[in-house]
Amino acid sequence: MSALRFPDLPPSEPQGCDLLAEERSKTTFSVHELSNYLLGQEYLERQEKMLALIENEPAFDKSERYFQGRTERFAHALRKDHALVKLAQEQKWTPEEFQQADILIDEPGPFGLHRGMFMPTLVSQGTEEQHERFLKPALRYEIIGCYAQTEIGHGSNVQGIETTATYHPETDEFEIHTPFLTACKWWIGGLGKAANHAVVMARLVTAGKDYGPHAFCVPIRSMEDHTLLPGVMAGDIGPKFGYNTTDNGCMWFDHYRVPRISLLAKYSSIKPGTGEYVTPPNSKLSYGTMVLIRASLVGYARVGLAKAVTIATRYSAIRRQFVDKDSPKKMGKLVVETPVLDYSMQQYRLFPIIAAAYACHFTSKEMMRLYYLNIKNMASGNFSLLADVHASSSGLKSLTTTMAAASIEECRRACGGHGFSSFSGLPLMLQDYAPNVTWEGDNYMITQQTGRYLFKSFRDLVAKRASGKFSASQITNPTLAYLNTYLDNPTLKCPATTPAQFHNPEIQLAAYGHRAAHMVAEIVHALDVEKRSWNSMLVEIYNASVAHCQLILVQNFILGIRGDMPQPEGVTVPELSPAAKAAMTDLSDLFALHQIHKQPGEFLTSGYIDAKHVSMMGKAIMDLMEQKIRPNAVGLVDSFCMPDYFLNSALGRFDGKVYEAYTEMATKEPLNQTEVVDGYEQYIKPFTNPRGVQGKTIQARL
Amino acid sequence: MSALRFPDLPPSEPQGCDLLAEERSKTTFSVHELSNYLLGQEYLERQEKMLALIENEPAFDKSERYFQGRTERFAHALRKDHALVKLAQEQKWTPEEFQQADILIDEPGPFGLHRGMFMPTLVSQGTEEQHERFLKPALRYEIIGCYAQTEIGHGSNVQGIETTATYHPETDEFEIHTPFLTACKWWIGGLGKAANHAVVMARLVTAGKDYGPHAFCVPIRSMEDHTLLPGVMAGDIGPKFGYNTTDNGCMWFDHYRVPRISLLAKYSSIKPGTGEYVTPPNSKLSYGTMVLIRASLVGYARVGLAKAVTIATRYSAIRRQFVDKDSPKKMGKLVVETPVLDYSMQQYRLFPIIAAAYACHFTSKEMMRLYYLNIKNMASGNFSLLADVHASSSGLKSLTTTMAAASIEECRRACGGHGFSSFSGLPLMLQDYAPNVTWEGDNYMITQQTGRYLFKSFRDLVAKRASGKFSASQITNPTLAYLNTYLDNPTLKCPATTPAQFHNPEIQLAAYGHRAAHMVAEIVHALDVEKRSWNSMLVEIYNASVAHCQLILVQNFILGIRGDMPQPEGVTVPELSPAAKAAMTDLSDLFALHQIHKQPGEFLTSGYIDAKHVSMMGKAIMDLMEQKIRPNAVGLVDSFCMPDYFLNSALGRFDGKVYEAYTEMATKEPLNQTEVVDGYEQYIKPFTNPRGVQGKTIQARL
Repeated sequence: MSALRFPDLPPSEPQGCDLLAEERSKTTFSVHELSNYLLGQEYLERQEKMLALIENEPAFDKSERYFQGRTERFAHALRKDHALVKLAQEQKWTPEEFQQADILIDEPGPFGLHRGMFMPTLVSQGTEEQHERFLKPALRYEIIGCYAQTEIGHGSNVQGIETTATYHPETDEFEIHTPFLTACKWWIGGLGKAANHAVVMARLVTAGKDYGPHAFCVPIRSMEDHTLLPGVMAGDIGPKFGYNTTDNGCMWFDHYRVPRISLLAKYSSIKPGTGEYVTPPNSKLSYGTMVLIRASLVGYARVGLAKAVTIATRYSAIRRQFVDKDSPKKMGKLVVETPVLDYSMQQYRLFPIIAAAYACHFTSKEMMRLYYLNIKNMASGNFSLLADVHASSSGLKSLTTTMAAASIEECRRACGGHGFSSFSGLPLMLQDYAPNVTWEGDNYMITQQTGRYLFKSFRDLVAKRASGKFSASQITNPTLAYLNTYLDNPTLKCPATTPAQFHNPEIQLAAYGHRAAHMVAEIVHALDVEKRSWNSMLVEIYNASVAHCQLILVQNFILGIRGDMPQPEGVTVPELSPAAKAAMTDLSDLFALHQIHKQPGEFLTSGYIDAKHVSMMGKAIMDLMEQKIRPNAVGLVDSFCMPDYFLNSALGRFDGKVYEAYTEMATKEPLNQTEVVDGYEQYIKPFTNPRGVQGKTIQARL
Repeated sequence: MSALRFPDLPPSEPQGCDLLAEERSKTTFSVHELSNYLLGQEYLERQEKMLALIENEPAFDKSERYFQGRTERFAHALRKDHALVKLAQEQKWTPEEFQQADILIDEPGPFGLHRGMFMPTLVSQGTEEQHERFLKPALRYEIIGCYAQTEIGHGSNVQGIETTATYHPETDEFEIHTPFLTACKWWIGGLGKAANHAVVMARLVTAGKDYGPHAFCVPIRSMEDHTLLPGVMAGDIGPKFGYNTTDNGCMWFDHYRVPRISLLAKYSSIKPGTGEYVTPPNSKLSYGTMVLIRASLVGYARVGLAKAVTIATRYSAIRRQFVDKDSPKKMGKLVVETPVLDYSMQQYRLFPIIAAAYACHFTSKEMMRLYYLNIKNMASGNFSLLADVHASSSGLKSLTTTMAAASIEECRRACGGHGFSSFSGLPLMLQDYAPNVTWEGDNYMITQQTGRYLFKSFRDLVAKRASGKFSASQITNPTLAYLNTYLDNPTLKCPATTPAQFHNPEIQLAAYGHRAAHMVAEIVHALDVEKRSWNSMLVEIYNASVAHCQLILVQNFILGIRGDMPQPEGVTVPELSPAAKAAMTDLSDLFALHQIHKQPGEFLTSGYIDAKHVSMMGKAIMDLMEQKIRPNAVGLVDSFCMPDYFLNSALGRFDGKVYEAYTEMATKEPLNQTEVVDGYEQYIKPFTNPRGVQGKTIQARL
């Protein structure tokens, strides 16, 4: 039992539950309607079903999470992954059901990459024989795999990896080998302790020639007793900023022999005997997976944004600080301190994050639609969408994950001191979210892919327009559309003369389009005319990718509310009621205008916006936040439907019992299990009571 | 012994030590000279002496730090604090020596607030009798204290705290009491487990009247056996984002009686018997301490910036990624991958952080000088400096700690994946640095103090100028100087027509001064003419404070290099050699121009800068970084003289042996102490080998 007992006293008035009830009574739209619109009834019902199954199951318990060190947390995650697979097998879950439970439990575990990378690689790169041999047992978790690509000396540059796989025709085997310390596999999720197989990326060498990185599926631990196989060394890479429930591992090979079937051979293979390399077909298809992963990270950014801002918004409606002298808040006759959510700075910090969560929602839906449409198109030989979708998905992955990481930290700070407590839920969220900005393409690096596409599109368009054979029918996607509008009039000025006019979505879109196109035009000029090197332009290229992707987010938000968003075949979306549509339009306006107001530099240098416009936008934003969004703030985060079990936060609870929950959690702190701290005799008493004197004697001495 | 063994292989060429040696050979100035100029020979010699004493002492060992959970880390910190006090007593350390050792060890411990807040409060607010009774035993660590101000429901708003201390004349005692759950003391460093006394801030109530918060020094744990005293409950508040080696605690009182002498009575007291409250003298003096703490946080921001960027810069000189097609790097005949430090984006991310560390260095020195000068002035009744120094210290605390926190995270990300590993040193640094943005005045909130001063100065100046009796002699500080220059010509335009002209410090200062003054003028107009409320202007007020303080940083950097910085009486600073001065000037230029280039919005809307200037600055920055700063980058971070013991980073080592150190650290991971993970039998084997079959049988089954 804890040595720490809190007094049986209520918090001072007003109570958190009353404050949230008051907030909810002011909401101008139906939370239920908006939740359904966003997430769908099926999703919400499934969430309830999942919650009932997992919330009270000890293997999925979260109450010890913030107290455990790395070793205990990993042990818990292994137990959890085992229990989750068992439950999924018992319940015959669909992949969607599994994923939804996984998100609710929110603890990246040792089997995560088996599902996320190992099996998908087998599916996409394995032959039927390999599916039989590796994939089928993997689906049953007899094989547990990992995806071993990065090395300690090579991450983003896959072509630079140093591990070799040399074909030996005399035994029809590959010899996998680690030639340098820098070639050790590193960061491989699930490899440290859990996996018994790995997809290993290694340089295929045959007949004396190096064909670069290829994927090999090899056993690494004994199926009998899980010991490492001879020729393989592996272990865990140690503690990290976050993700400590996953056993990111390292591995190296000492002339490790594997049979020829280890080479995943759907696209390239080796002829037995001769060792002749059979070249892969031109495979743009592999872009597909990357687009899918990056698009899904946009959706995951939405989850991060929504979760953090749910906590910060609810707590900011409860936390009070100072009396606002200009407009003191009263409860009955009593003057009370102002809820921090009433301060314009707090609104400026949090409301754009609510808006960003919604923006990511619509764009993530649209990216998934485009992904599936593109896959379908490619299957019939139509590659017209690929470049645009690939470029956008790269830039959007970079932009939205950077936004989400920054926003989680902003929400943490916006909770004041208590955001620093683990019990707020925000520190661990930040730590576990952090790798998103680095993995699946470092957020700075991958924007070059977006840039290349934008510059090529611009050059092609300029050439077409110059050829005299240009017609509007050649504008086949939104990127070409805004570039073309800019080329029609590069010195266009914003026509707005009042703050209210900035609520016009056409003006918002024109501002974003003009700015992005202007930046692209300047970079193409610097590269092509001034002959500046690509390396010297990396900062501008990054900024252009951000500008392009902010436009996409603004655009999809506007279309998403209007109901003008294209939908996948067979899907219809209900129309929003006027009240909900109005609330969403306020958020969409804020999303568009806040970014301009906060960082107006590029909008100003593009010439479309001037200093007066920025000032007008400032007024438009302040009015919007205070009058329209403030009353709806709690309703807007309630609409994300994130259950307390998922939030795992004393500050963000749906019922507003912040202080009660917070103090209750503190009683469980291990240091509070004894009244006098371990180490007192050794480290404190020698100073405070060196002669072991008792009671009154000491007071007299002092 | 670890089950993980790495192969006896070197990293692939080139080796880290050779790369750093090459970098160091390119440095254009003497690192030794610059270190001495910055830190002084005395400091550097003391650092060597301290290192020799602590580096190999088990109580100060850092090798387990990244592996330990909270409970073990706290136990270590308690042991460390004990050993440190013993060592200081044996060695008869001065406070400077103690502080330097404390910084090197870099582990905030349970006795930290005893020195940092408890004793300083006794010094400044206690009477001589109280010094005798509390301070003297505290200096010997017989009393170990903490400073109990914040409550779970009240942080920044000290006036709102709810704990009461009611005077009872019949027994000449105060009764300290916690009336609500929200009144529990919270976040109090050292209170959780270590302290036996506390300075408690409580509302003084006497003769039926509430006189607001006052400080009481009270015992909380038994001097005999460290148990809690009757009427006091206390414990640890649980795990946090960082600072887990400190026992931040919570405490509440149940009608706890203490003698009248508990009230720290230098400024206000109670007459025994009657309970009459004796009012404090008008005490602007208390601002002094706040200025000192905030000024010292600017210096601590420098440490954070310098530490993070030392790690990131050294590692970026070693880490290689891709071959730059425009200018491939060669070693002998071999084309090798480009060190990431050669990429302009990496330079744009890291070099401004190097510059910011130097900028904070000069400003922190200047703030300390002003603090002591102001203290001296106030002692002779001269309060002329106080307002400016207080305003600047608030804004600078906010700006530099926000910069440092963002920069540590930027450095972490700039190390790619490996920045996510605890062994980089950056995650824990970020976590332990994080509270700086919240404590000692939340970074958003305290800028209002800077704003108030700026607006008052502006209004006064405008009035004086309008009075017709204005003369230049009334410009008594740099703030008035730039406001006055602006009022002389609010529509001034930057005269620069080439990138090179932006190296002129007068143009840099004019740009920053014009922008800050323009923002102040706009806000005063909005408040005074448009009658907008203070609350509606908080965003602009924050931005104005940032603008004001960026100007101070730019200004002090320029003066610091020139040798034109005022010095404390009796201090002379050696002149920098031309080579060192040139290298520092490059950094100062970068510091000034990068901030404009990155966020030009306010400079543009102020009218001083136009779009062409921003573009010119971009070119000036790129040239500066590539040609001038790149060759000196490693030398510039070496000049901070941060020893490996302090950095505690595999990536940032002075010798460049990154991969060797990194892999060695991984062998110590607790999960690597067994080859087969605990939990295999329970959680993995049931899937992979459910029937316990052996060897070949399994392969056949698969």
